[in-house]
Amino acid sequence: MRIAVVGAGALGLYYGAVLQKAGNDVHFLLRRDFDAVMANGLTIYSVNGDFHLPRVKGYRRADEIGEVDLVVIGLKTFANHRYAELISPLLGTSTLILTLQNGLGNEEALSALFGEKRILGGVAFLCSNRGVPGVVHHLGEGRIILGEYTKKGTARAEKIAALFAEAGVDCKAVPDLKRARWEKLVWNIPFNGLCALMMKPVDELLSLAATRKLIIDMMGEVIVGGNAQGLMKDMPETLAEKMVIFSENLGAYKPSMMIDRIEGRSLELDAIFGVPLEAAASRGVAMPRVEELHALLQLMEKR
Amino acid sequence: MRIAVVGAGALGLYYGAVLQKAGNDVHFLLRRDFDAVMANGLTIYSVNGDFHLPRVKGYRRADEIGEVDLVVIGLKTFANHRYAELISPLLGTSTLILTLQNGLGNEEALSALFGEKRILGGVAFLCSNRGVPGVVHHLGEGRIILGEYTKKGTARAEKIAALFAEAGVDCKAVPDLKRARWEKLVWNIPFNGLCALMMKPVDELLSLAATRKLIIDMMGEVIVGGNAQGLMKDMPETLAEKMVIFSENLGAYKPSMMIDRIEGRSLELDAIFGVPLEAAASRGVAMPRVEELHALLQLMEKR
Repeated sequence: MRIAVVGAGALGLYYGAVLQKAGNDVHFLLRRDFDAVMANGLTIYSVNGDFHLPRVKGYRRADEIGEVDLVVIGLKTFANHRYAELISPLLGTSTLILTLQNGLGNEEALSALFGEKRILGGVAFLCSNRGVPGVVHHLGEGRIILGEYTKKGTARAEKIAALFAEAGVDCKAVPDLKRARWEKLVWNIPFNGLCALMMKPVDELLSLAATRKLIIDMMGEVIVGGNAQGLMKDMPETLAEKMVIFSENLGAYKPSMMIDRIEGRSLELDAIFGVPLEAAASRGVAMPRVEELHALLQLMEKR
Repeated sequence: MRIAVVGAGALGLYYGAVLQKAGNDVHFLLRRDFDAVMANGLTIYSVNGDFHLPRVKGYRRADEIGEVDLVVIGLKTFANHRYAELISPLLGTSTLILTLQNGLGNEEALSALFGEKRILGGVAFLCSNRGVPGVVHHLGEGRIILGEYTKKGTARAEKIAALFAEAGVDCKAVPDLKRARWEKLVWNIPFNGLCALMMKPVDELLSLAATRKLIIDMMGEVIVGGNAQGLMKDMPETLAEKMVIFSENLGAYKPSMMIDRIEGRSLELDAIFGVPLEAAASRGVAMPRVEELHALLQLMEKR
């Protein structure tokens, strides 16, 4: 399958590399890593086994790639205003678009530009960081849950899931993408936000009773906010406690928003906070703890 | 009147100095400022006019002072475990104790040690900072509202208010000390907490719509929490908006908790957050935004 990876950061480079390794024809739209990748290829240091791709098809501009069967999007959401420029040249009549980006609002924005019929979304549970240009460190996980944005059924999603599964990625197609997105927000909102605000990793937040309680209470708000969106099946209240217990195994893990702050990037505040808060408010659900964290992050980001 | 000042920081030194200037026999329990004050006296640079007291009665230990008519307490509340040691030597049978400390719980703790009959409390609205040893900068305000802790009526409180008024301090006795304390918390909880957490002064918090809204919402929680304590007269909901509009005149003001953090002191988290949260919870009132801020401040303070 002819695949384009748009947004080749720690996530895009990793999944693109494993798809190429499995025999797919992968084309990477590159910026920071272009020179290194063209000269030396791509190296993945992975908990599943390191590998090196000596020849990688890298590009600086999307029109050099041309039409593909599948566009995989790994852009940071604060770059979503570049969708049209980066994606339009890749689209034929039957090209599918799969966004693996964080938070809410990505499928909606893609759909407005390119039509809802070709849009799928996926929630990636991946711990990976960029190393020097041309190098990705895959620290753990990697699972993807994907689904259709508006199309009924899971036939196409299952075909794409099979594509990832053949490349060794634990990938599952689900009928309710919205629920998968909100489930990830239950974790992402407290941990991404609090770790980035306080510049402390997951274990430090969980080691204090007051912040552990705050995380559970905040997760509770997101569960209520998500369940108000008309999911096929409600998220159970017990999800919060379960996720916190799971997170105790993560040790000194730094969530992506904390890494973004350490590396001086913008934060994905709209996708992870702004749009979910609006979605909850539109169904009459207040999320005061989430709103407070969002306000503090906005203040922190203000120049 | 023979007066002892215990806790001679920016507040204790300032009020002690104006009481001495007005002719009272004031005795200062000193630590950091002892050498400077004994050598050169006390200098107050004040918006109401600078003045210098060449001779000041300073002490390193309370038993060197002996019995007084009135003990004025300006200690930081995280030093309240030293009440017995610092105050016992000053007490005769009719000595009154006036705490001008921040937050809740001070009158209760003093009462448990020294009996409730001699306890009065005051809420000070004072902008002052310590300069080099022996120097206080009085930047603005100075008003005190004081009242009895448990004794009925305002006769004694009015006598002490007159003592301050004769020294030029705008001082009023009120029948409901608890209401005065909660009114100050409506301001102190959001501004002390948020400025200390974010290390940004008042005007920066108010310049962003999201944090301005957060402040008003948080004040609303404190108003509901305070009104549940059986005040003589409820605080109006409109107090929040009024206080925020007043605070817009404060410019780049740094509240005391932010100064404490800048100068490396402990923060008054129990008095300003912990005890008020417990008081609200004991009347069935949740203050989720206040609780979140308290948790974040505790995390920040954790070594």
